Amino acid sequence: MPDTLPPDSVGLVTPQKMVFDEPLALDCGRTLPSYELVYETYGELNADRSNAVLICHALSGNHHAAGYHSLEDRKPGWWETCIGPGKPIDTDHFHVVCLNNLGGCHGSTGPMSINPETGKPYGPDFPIVTVRDWVRSQARLAERLGIEQWAAVIGGSLGGMQALQWAIDFPERLRHAVVIAAAPKLSAQNIGFNEVARQAIMSDPDFHDGHYYEHHTIPRRGLALARMLGHITYLSDEAMRAKFGRELREGKLSFGFDVEFQVESYLRYQGQSFVEKFDANTYLLMTKALDYFDPAADYDNDLARAVDRARAEFMIMSFTSDWRFAPSRSREIVKALVDSRKPVSYAEIEAHHGHDAFLMPIPDYLATFSAYMTRVREGRP
Amino acid sequence: MPDTLPPDSVGLVTPQKMVFDEPLALDCGRTLPSYELVYETYGELNADRSNAVLICHALSGNHHAAGYHSLEDRKPGWWETCIGPGKPIDTDHFHVVCLNNLGGCHGSTGPMSINPETGKPYGPDFPIVTVRDWVRSQARLAERLGIEQWAAVIGGSLGGMQALQWAIDFPERLRHAVVIAAAPKLSAQNIGFNEVARQAIMSDPDFHDGHYYEHHTIPRRGLALARMLGHITYLSDEAMRAKFGRELREGKLSFGFDVEFQVESYLRYQGQSFVEKFDANTYLLMTKALDYFDPAADYDNDLARAVDRARAEFMIMSFTSDWRFAPSRSREIVKALVDSRKPVSYAEIEAHHGHDAFLMPIPDYLATFSAYMTRVREGRP
Repeated sequence: MPDTLPPDSVGLVTPQKMVFDEPLALDCGRTLPSYELVYETYGELNADRSNAVLICHALSGNHHAAGYHSLEDRKPGWWETCIGPGKPIDTDHFHVVCLNNLGGCHGSTGPMSINPETGKPYGPDFPIVTVRDWVRSQARLAERLGIEQWAAVIGGSLGGMQALQWAIDFPERLRHAVVIAAAPKLSAQNIGFNEVARQAIMSDPDFHDGHYYEHHTIPRRGLALARMLGHITYLSDEAMRAKFGRELREGKLSFGFDVEFQVESYLRYQGQSFVEKFDANTYLLMTKALDYFDPAADYDNDLARAVDRARAEFMIMSFTSDWRFAPSRSREIVKALVDSRKPVSYAEIEAHHGHDAFLMPIPDYLATFSAYMTRVREGRP
Repeated sequence: MPDTLPPDSVGLVTPQKMVFDEPLALDCGRTLPSYELVYETYGELNADRSNAVLICHALSGNHHAAGYHSLEDRKPGWWETCIGPGKPIDTDHFHVVCLNNLGGCHGSTGPMSINPETGKPYGPDFPIVTVRDWVRSQARLAERLGIEQWAAVIGGSLGGMQALQWAIDFPERLRHAVVIAAAPKLSAQNIGFNEVARQAIMSDPDFHDGHYYEHHTIPRRGLALARMLGHITYLSDEAMRAKFGRELREGKLSFGFDVEFQVESYLRYQGQSFVEKFDANTYLLMTKALDYFDPAADYDNDLARAVDRARAEFMIMSFTSDWRFAPSRSREIVKALVDSRKPVSYAEIEAHHGHDAFLMPIPDYLATFSAYMTRVREGRP
């Protein structure tokens, strides 16, 4: 980090916390008696409270989407490429809200929080939360912030699923839904990868059926494996080739099982560093929220009927090399919206980065995203 | 298994063993002082010994490619679809040889074998073997069997890589190389998946740095995870959708972490049953042989130059939905052969099964394979 913050950054930001004492009924049938949500905001809320946008995070994201927490911060928030003055989600015009979802491990109520009924951390007893539950909790946050209607709800990957769910569940409370690199539901392959990640965590002897806090352990091996596997699915084959090829770290084969290829080194590093900043029980919950997302399920698997209630305008974006949620999956959403006669724009961005492209400064992507957000801002149809 | 064996099967077969007392120098710089290879044969060797074909196995394969070991056997050999009377590799015409590769866990010398220098199992001290080492050991087996020239060397996946290496290393000793669902070298993504599998095994506390035999343990969790992950890469997204969709085992969501979706059940079963029949140290070795395979490396990464020495005719086959070794990877081999002016046929088979297609009874595949093998048999150019 430079001594001065970049001029196109929102700069120093401070997380805030909202406490909810009214119980929240969840899809699983259980009720959270009370909970807290941690969130950040960037940009000013205008006088008529019409310029607020909600950012929904993906599997390993959190409320810190942009800016820096201190001058010593080495990295900005996870969507710094897209949020800030002059960027697609332009903080000179929008009031941006981003929260850590329920079940998270960065300040909102989740497995690491104290269960008021037992006085101990929830751990594995934290209820399984769904995208619908998240949207419900986000709607309450909006009420408390005095935001009756979002100018837009925006997200990539699992975040995009939340934006889609918002449009279905609270049709009057958002004008635009921006759904990036998402899918209307997971494929068997997607679920398969999630299941391998879960098995890696749950079969780690240090997992202790999720009660590892009490055992003062962390299922490091399992969580690192889950992250390594995740990373492969976030990158395209082409991106990995461009990034690592078959480069050898030491220049020649070692005929052993230590790290040899650069890609191995990268994956091990990603796995190990993730363990320091993410909670395994939260990871399990997030993968389940992904697996369960299926808004068409209540409508005879007819997504067009599921989105029929929506009143928002939609922007759907996908990336050519994304094989986790391929463009064809985004097109399923577009087709359902078209079939249901909803206003929808669709952009398929040429990019070799794979699923991670939604976090990358790809000129075509930023330009398309900016153009749409200008439209959101100007209220043009 | 029925009481009578199917008429298009090679029927009851008995593995044989060949002992090699002459040392084998390996690519890693170490030498195996002696070793054994277990193998099976099907069909008669003709008088001039010209009808022998060698089958090379893939990652988890072995010498038992066709037929049954007993009338109680529930399953035939792994390539029963392609080997037998009237099948593509027609045992009425060919003498088929298939061996378990060095480093294997089904009878050939490998990590579970006794190291003559210590009197204890090799375990993790078994040297890392390469595709080239395998081909060298297979050439010695051919000599002992009195087979001066194979009518064809044939394999799928890692087996196809051996067929390609044969054509380069022993140009005069095979007339045809049939390379199915292979690649000229692994991509960074391929290596990445292998690395996650290795890390799963090696980080299992029951692995004991590979000395688990002595600890009377098996790294079950790790090996099962490796296999689960492997299975996802063997199937196409489409095949998984056709096979499992998002079907729930109990018909409704359980909001817990037990098996819910059919695909989870399938993967867990595959993982757990694999542990009973495969050795973890062998799995590690096989993944390294895959990672290291790169015949162009010695020729300035020019595959056309690498294959220049070859004298065989080539048949390359790929499957449209194979994303582990996609058709584009097979086409790299075809291009190198064409650039090097070698006789090559190429078939890209329409199939939704993914990488596993090479094991499946796909009519177009069997017909194409049969047509080529008829040509091999008749010695037509």
